[in-house]
Amino acid sequence: MNDDTALIAIDWGTTSARAYRLGAGGRVLDERSAPLGIQQVRDGAFAAAFASLLGPWQGLAVPRLACGMIGSRQGWVEASYRACPVAISALAGDLTHTPGREMAIVSGITCRDDSGVPDVMRGEETQIVGLVDETSDASLVVQPGTHSKWTLVRRDPAQGAIIHRFATYMTGETFAVLRDHSILGRLMRPAETFEREAFERGARRAIASRSGGEILHQIFGARALGLFEEIAPESIADYLSGMLIGAEVAAGARWAGQASDEDALWLAGSEVLCMRYALALRLVDRHARIAPSDVAARGLWRIALHAGLVKG
Amino acid sequence: MNDDTALIAIDWGTTSARAYRLGAGGRVLDERSAPLGIQQVRDGAFAAAFASLLGPWQGLAVPRLACGMIGSRQGWVEASYRACPVAISALAGDLTHTPGREMAIVSGITCRDDSGVPDVMRGEETQIVGLVDETSDASLVVQPGTHSKWTLVRRDPAQGAIIHRFATYMTGETFAVLRDHSILGRLMRPAETFEREAFERGARRAIASRSGGEILHQIFGARALGLFEEIAPESIADYLSGMLIGAEVAAGARWAGQASDEDALWLAGSEVLCMRYALALRLVDRHARIAPSDVAARGLWRIALHAGLVKG
Repeated sequence: MNDDTALIAIDWGTTSARAYRLGAGGRVLDERSAPLGIQQVRDGAFAAAFASLLGPWQGLAVPRLACGMIGSRQGWVEASYRACPVAISALAGDLTHTPGREMAIVSGITCRDDSGVPDVMRGEETQIVGLVDETSDASLVVQPGTHSKWTLVRRDPAQGAIIHRFATYMTGETFAVLRDHSILGRLMRPAETFEREAFERGARRAIASRSGGEILHQIFGARALGLFEEIAPESIADYLSGMLIGAEVAAGARWAGQASDEDALWLAGSEVLCMRYALALRLVDRHARIAPSDVAARGLWRIALHAGLVKG
Repeated sequence: MNDDTALIAIDWGTTSARAYRLGAGGRVLDERSAPLGIQQVRDGAFAAAFASLLGPWQGLAVPRLACGMIGSRQGWVEASYRACPVAISALAGDLTHTPGREMAIVSGITCRDDSGVPDVMRGEETQIVGLVDETSDASLVVQPGTHSKWTLVRRDPAQGAIIHRFATYMTGETFAVLRDHSILGRLMRPAETFEREAFERGARRAIASRSGGEILHQIFGARALGLFEEIAPESIADYLSGMLIGAEVAAGARWAGQASDEDALWLAGSEVLCMRYALALRLVDRHARIAPSDVAARGLWRIALHAGLVKG
């Protein structure tokens, strides 16, 4: 097994961790996953979690490189944030090691919006690095999730792909807390299938709005429609999901600006979420390509190459 | 005591109930309150809750008129919804009685927005009826709360004050679920005083936005600012409150339209919330008057007058 392995790449997030055994050229030879996200690890027992995640790979004398929330303040060791614009070479030059040098961790990135308020990303930057290899031009990458990220990537003649700027939308978490803890959840009944019509109805409603707070009004519609039985209880959750994702997509498309109309638009994330976002993006006339599922492993390979941890 | 009493007016909401003993001309002689909102009453024991709320007033042989969530499907008996536009006389002509005729309940009201989605109100319409007596012209009434209401009132030569249309904003509940259940609450520390600067900073940020979903991005700023220690932990909650109320106020002012610039603008609700809304409204150049605290009692009196339950 050892002969083939060049790098162990680890995508270590809040709720789960996934390790890849990569061979020559970054080819995925094998992978292992565990429900050992940083929220699941008690009392800072990260070394034990690491041993459990790697299992039989522990003895392999190869570099290990990780990305994600494992580098946050609540993780194993805090890795810094690089300020945008950030080139891959800058990420590769700023790795943080765990106390026992079990592995290196890629930095997060940060940027500021027009009003000077900071934004942060940790883990998604590595997926983006794995993805931009696929495209030669500027691109817009949308990573749906608890905290969705919208990122503009530009190509610099000297430095290659540059993460130019990005914006986080708390869409997934807002949906979850409204569904689980607000009055909107009361009339909902679980659906066995995706209620596409309700989702698109919600998305269209949100996309048509022109003011920042209108979504606070629109979501109450999920309650009133339910009360008047003008929507099926099984459709309410997807109607709410449509409104929130529609609102994000409208704001994100505006944030990305005109420039991105001809750029590649990538969706990277869970299949189910990417499908929803692709539908909502179509309603604002954007056609998205779905990223391969192993972009984090590809990104870690590319950063390891730049850092000299592996040979190309 | 009986000699003076003309009406017992009851404002019965989700979390609490308040009863007023009204004399000639609707003057408040006395009031009683209890933590007996409909969510606190178990197994439909509303008659017992009613007896406890009224206490020594139970023996008074006078009409009893209630408004609020007590008339909802989860309340004592379901009162209907009148469709906007609604005149006071229409509310007075549509009272629902409890099974034992312990009291009558005012209808809720409903309207539809431009896209045909319904909205509902129950209790606030009675406060509005109590308030519009104060002003001779058209007015805009803002009732901050868990589900804030924005209402346009017009005056009809024949029917008097008409509740023209309204819109609900889930601002208070969205704030509460984000503070209590999302990542935004993690870095917050309780403040002993109102952090006005943080509130206005948040409100300005939200008011400047132009797209329905931008608020989903902006609220994440409360996290990133906290992470970078660019905001005090004691200020994060008021910064978030400012963003959400700012977003509502910007959307509400837009919803109300140009017509309302010269109309009376009323704020009716808890003193603490009205103060926050007045600050945010000032940032969009609107100056609000604060309603008296007993507008529900006044509204119930006026509806009772129209219904012939009391003499003027």
